[in-house]
Amino acid sequence: MRKISLFVIALVSFSCFGQNNTLNLMPWPQEIIFGDSNYIIKPNFTISVNQEASKRIEIATTKFLRRLSGRTGVFIDEGFAFKSSEIENPSLEINFKRIGKLELNEDESYQLKVSKDKISINAATDIGVIYALETLLQLETNNESAYFFPEITINDAPRFPWRGLMIDVARHFEPLDVIKRNLDAMASVKLNVFHWHLSDDQGFRVQINSRPKLHQLASDGQYYTHAQIKEVVQYASDLGIRVVPEFDIPGHATSWLVAYPEIASKDTIYKIERYSGIFNPTLDPTNDETYEILKDVFTEVAPLFPDKYFHIGGDENEGKDWDKNKKIQAFKKQHDIKDNHELQAYFNSKVQQILKDNGKIMMGWDEIFHPGLPKDVVIHSWRGTEAMLKAAKLGYKTILSKGYYIDLLKSVETHYTNEPFPDTHDLTNEQLKNILGGEATMWSELVTPLTIDSRIWPRTAAIAERFWSNKAINDVDNMLKRLEVVSFRLEELGITHLRNRDVILRNISNNQNLTSLINLTKICEPLKGYQRNKGGTQYKTFSPFTQFADACNADAIDAMHFNENVDAFLKNNTKESKTELLKLFKKWIQNNVEFTKINNNPTLNQLAPLSINLANLSSILIKGLEQDKLNKEDYDSATELIKNLRKPIVDTELAINSGLERLMSKFNKKH
Amino acid sequence: MRKISLFVIALVSFSCFGQNNTLNLMPWPQEIIFGDSNYIIKPNFTISVNQEASKRIEIATTKFLRRLSGRTGVFIDEGFAFKSSEIENPSLEINFKRIGKLELNEDESYQLKVSKDKISINAATDIGVIYALETLLQLETNNESAYFFPEITINDAPRFPWRGLMIDVARHFEPLDVIKRNLDAMASVKLNVFHWHLSDDQGFRVQINSRPKLHQLASDGQYYTHAQIKEVVQYASDLGIRVVPEFDIPGHATSWLVAYPEIASKDTIYKIERYSGIFNPTLDPTNDETYEILKDVFTEVAPLFPDKYFHIGGDENEGKDWDKNKKIQAFKKQHDIKDNHELQAYFNSKVQQILKDNGKIMMGWDEIFHPGLPKDVVIHSWRGTEAMLKAAKLGYKTILSKGYYIDLLKSVETHYTNEPFPDTHDLTNEQLKNILGGEATMWSELVTPLTIDSRIWPRTAAIAERFWSNKAINDVDNMLKRLEVVSFRLEELGITHLRNRDVILRNISNNQNLTSLINLTKICEPLKGYQRNKGGTQYKTFSPFTQFADACNADAIDAMHFNENVDAFLKNNTKESKTELLKLFKKWIQNNVEFTKINNNPTLNQLAPLSINLANLSSILIKGLEQDKLNKEDYDSATELIKNLRKPIVDTELAINSGLERLMSKFNKKH
Repeated sequence: MRKISLFVIALVSFSCFGQNNTLNLMPWPQEIIFGDSNYIIKPNFTISVNQEASKRIEIATTKFLRRLSGRTGVFIDEGFAFKSSEIENPSLEINFKRIGKLELNEDESYQLKVSKDKISINAATDIGVIYALETLLQLETNNESAYFFPEITINDAPRFPWRGLMIDVARHFEPLDVIKRNLDAMASVKLNVFHWHLSDDQGFRVQINSRPKLHQLASDGQYYTHAQIKEVVQYASDLGIRVVPEFDIPGHATSWLVAYPEIASKDTIYKIERYSGIFNPTLDPTNDETYEILKDVFTEVAPLFPDKYFHIGGDENEGKDWDKNKKIQAFKKQHDIKDNHELQAYFNSKVQQILKDNGKIMMGWDEIFHPGLPKDVVIHSWRGTEAMLKAAKLGYKTILSKGYYIDLLKSVETHYTNEPFPDTHDLTNEQLKNILGGEATMWSELVTPLTIDSRIWPRTAAIAERFWSNKAINDVDNMLKRLEVVSFRLEELGITHLRNRDVILRNISNNQNLTSLINLTKICEPLKGYQRNKGGTQYKTFSPFTQFADACNADAIDAMHFNENVDAFLKNNTKESKTELLKLFKKWIQNNVEFTKINNNPTLNQLAPLSINLANLSSILIKGLEQDKLNKEDYDSATELIKNLRKPIVDTELAINSGLERLMSKFNKKH
Repeated sequence: MRKISLFVIALVSFSCFGQNNTLNLMPWPQEIIFGDSNYIIKPNFTISVNQEASKRIEIATTKFLRRLSGRTGVFIDEGFAFKSSEIENPSLEINFKRIGKLELNEDESYQLKVSKDKISINAATDIGVIYALETLLQLETNNESAYFFPEITINDAPRFPWRGLMIDVARHFEPLDVIKRNLDAMASVKLNVFHWHLSDDQGFRVQINSRPKLHQLASDGQYYTHAQIKEVVQYASDLGIRVVPEFDIPGHATSWLVAYPEIASKDTIYKIERYSGIFNPTLDPTNDETYEILKDVFTEVAPLFPDKYFHIGGDENEGKDWDKNKKIQAFKKQHDIKDNHELQAYFNSKVQQILKDNGKIMMGWDEIFHPGLPKDVVIHSWRGTEAMLKAAKLGYKTILSKGYYIDLLKSVETHYTNEPFPDTHDLTNEQLKNILGGEATMWSELVTPLTIDSRIWPRTAAIAERFWSNKAINDVDNMLKRLEVVSFRLEELGITHLRNRDVILRNISNNQNLTSLINLTKICEPLKGYQRNKGGTQYKTFSPFTQFADACNADAIDAMHFNENVDAFLKNNTKESKTELLKLFKKWIQNNVEFTKINNNPTLNQLAPLSINLANLSSILIKGLEQDKLNKEDYDSATELIKNLRKPIVDTELAINSGLERLMSKFNKKH
């Protein structure tokens, strides 16, 4: 057995350690010691737990057995774990010391040992055990004759204590099954905070008995009952996941004002917002009734969410309605409040008192930061590391989401390489500890239950690695390789990111042969950033999210392959890369033939220019590659085609554009 | 406009009416009048409702708009219906007279008119409106330039008032999202009764506060809370679907006895049953406590299920534990009860009183039938039409499930052609009215949330047509053609029957290229009847249902195509059929090449004999077809290969076997 330090593993890019190559662990553990044998998975596989099992362990071991049996097809005789007193020589022996508490800095560490004849898990808490079981499942592999776990010892613990995923259920509501399966997926990559964005301009998603107009008038009937929230919180707790609710105030608050216009800063009729963006409706911070309603609501929901932290949003309040309201202006003058930021600080301090009375610690986005803020308030940074560092330096706890906006559909590489700790800073080690971790944020303007999984996964697994693993684990190619396996394994938990692509394509094509459309999804990506829904007015909440763009995803696989081969070809002029490029061009020519056969409806017809232009360009570039040059006519045609292909089509962009242009530069010099 | 009577449509097999050919309605309406123009679907599409909308209509119209927008990609501006007073010239005008009651024989009729400029729905109840909206969505179609509804007038009403689907959640638990999406799918084909089989030997699935051991000890933690049941019942009600609960007693009752062994007929320790079949554990009908517990349970659950009907199962009680129990034997003697059937009748009469006290009408499977039974009791026939007719003749209401056992994975044709009314019988018309309809039954021994949809759908749509449409609508080929469209449209409602096939195959193949496996699923079918789980002991509840058989389905498409072409070839020796057969044989040869590339794990390797034998056989039969004969050696090899291919592999059978044998008979005469 060889002991390999984490640092060495990272430096060598995971490449030269034999068995290491076959491990698809994510997040990568802190320490791994490899062995040479295997533990074969057989029907007599059993589990023992060292004490009266916690409910967490009961659930986790049962799920573990189902998943192990489900993926291997091995008919495991015993469907449930035993107490250690009930069984001798279990296959997997679990020992833990105590029930983990769902709070910051709980011990999440574990040790996992697999030998030829025995597997053991040791952990301080049952939460550590859950993580060990997930690691063990990631270790499961096979050869031609058996399914097995490789011999190994893993010592593991997280780098950051706050590893979150935020899901916005205001812009588009997400039913319980969506939330639950995403909680399962979170646990599978060792995320431990589910941040639930529950209210915004487009909806208020919680049943509020004390102020029932909120769910009655401001949700389109799409809200969670108390029972459902308890169900989710319990489900999360069973997975070792904390649930932090967010009610966004005083801006992003149209829904509040649909229900209670009397606490608005502007006297008007409010309707549920159907578009996206930053809107003016804002709570009136000078109105006592505002705080009465907030008190009623927060006092009612506080017990539903046992976590200490409570998120009040606080972002993007431009205060336009404050500026236009004479009463509010007078109030500012009277209380010597010099600007809207200070007015919001006043508001926050009142809200913070309500939360404190309910035993909660307030947190909010960057904008809530203000010198007078109590030191226990947590700053959630969406603006960037600078703001985060500033807060941390002043002694505030912070978490980072800038760089983890998965809704923007940037490449997974951008998120993966977004390191929370900057290379240079002037913080002490003590101050650095104020950086608790981060959260991926799934804003839901452009996703529905059909597509949300495909925006969250698998990319969030890479972000989870950033939060859990050592900073030095940052080899992108290796991550991508492991991510592919992690991705398809997520299906086991019900995640629909892979299966729903074809559902969308079947709908678009009216159930025709999908091959040509699937091939197009492999080179097209949804418009990134905020391009798809410019100004927030191209889509309403209920616009169709069943389009070609919704079947596409970031990191289009054939495009990545193409761009890599262009680079290899330009750099080294290898035969292999040329062959690959020719293969792809031929594929796209043939694909247009196939596409043309099914192109019989208005939706498909929108894709025709893309398909045809690409086929025509491919023909020219095949010539170019084969003859190692392009004549002027072909060069001009190709240039024109590339220009056309740069135009977004049905909210997607062709992800091979950069490669095409680089390739053209080769012929530029020649023709 | 031409008026076509239903009878004529049926006689001509839907074939000669132009536009009719493009209609994918299922269940087929009672009366259709065709027009020549189209109503084009545009962004300005609006809906009006003639009165304060019912919650049902509110939900139905909103879902309608989402689905219409989702499938066409048309950005419909208005996401919700208007009251008729709020809008002029709506695209779709809905008029109904009253809120429908969820009870037997409620008016479910509707009229739907589509003209070039306007659509209207008229119905007595909001339930009729829901059906009209579903029909309208089925009418939606497109040409190259637009999505539209064809001009049409439909007058429609059901043939039978009881059109059900039973889902067994005892053998395998089904979470709420599974139930809800299946309710949506039921409504889409106008089924109106959800029969919820809630307890059996393998689990008790309802929270019972008065007798909490039932859900605590007998469910593995998989049960519905009161809140969840209310949620489902409300969800169903919003779709016009009644919910009939079933608690199976006195047999199929192991779960009751796990919780309360004191009411068992045998003094022993009871454990949740993990296998399938008929088991001995039976409630003690001579024990007062039995009725106390039943009274507590039924009194607690009765209000959760507002429907008048309450199913007590009652099937397959062999009474073995009664025979062995001296106290029970003494009781029989004392009360002059001559056999176990009479003892069960005694039990039923006590149960019936409990239900009556709770305002419920009792129903049960065939076995509850007994001369002394009150006349309002409903007999649910799983044994067959004879038992059903006998009960109907005696004045009992009956429903039929024999022939609709969708868990047996027989062809959809067998279910579709299973007519509830026999051709010959001696019932009066009045007595025939006692036959209320039928139910498809989804027994869940071999299904999990991953696969259950694929066993229910699309086949249950064909059964729904049997229950709704005229008896004369029975052209199988036409049904199959429409079913293919209905099937893929079910995806819109979240039904996973299509998408989950590849999920299972990705798992089996460890995320390799799926093409060869997909092709095998097109010719293999899961073992039918009770062959897959012989004796009920091959699978436990928690055995893996993630196998190749679980990715396969009845009515394997390439197999149907093959068998048809064999028949056409043998009958008429057409060139087309020969070409098709050659194409398929070549496909299977090539498929084995592809399969061999991915065959690298124990699970896949089990399929190798099938793939190889089929490829070898295909080579021989290509020779045979091309030379119009087989030499002795080839003939013998082919015979041997076919013999091998007849053997089930991993719980599937090759569905081309009959065609292969018929084809061989041709060469038999020649070589």
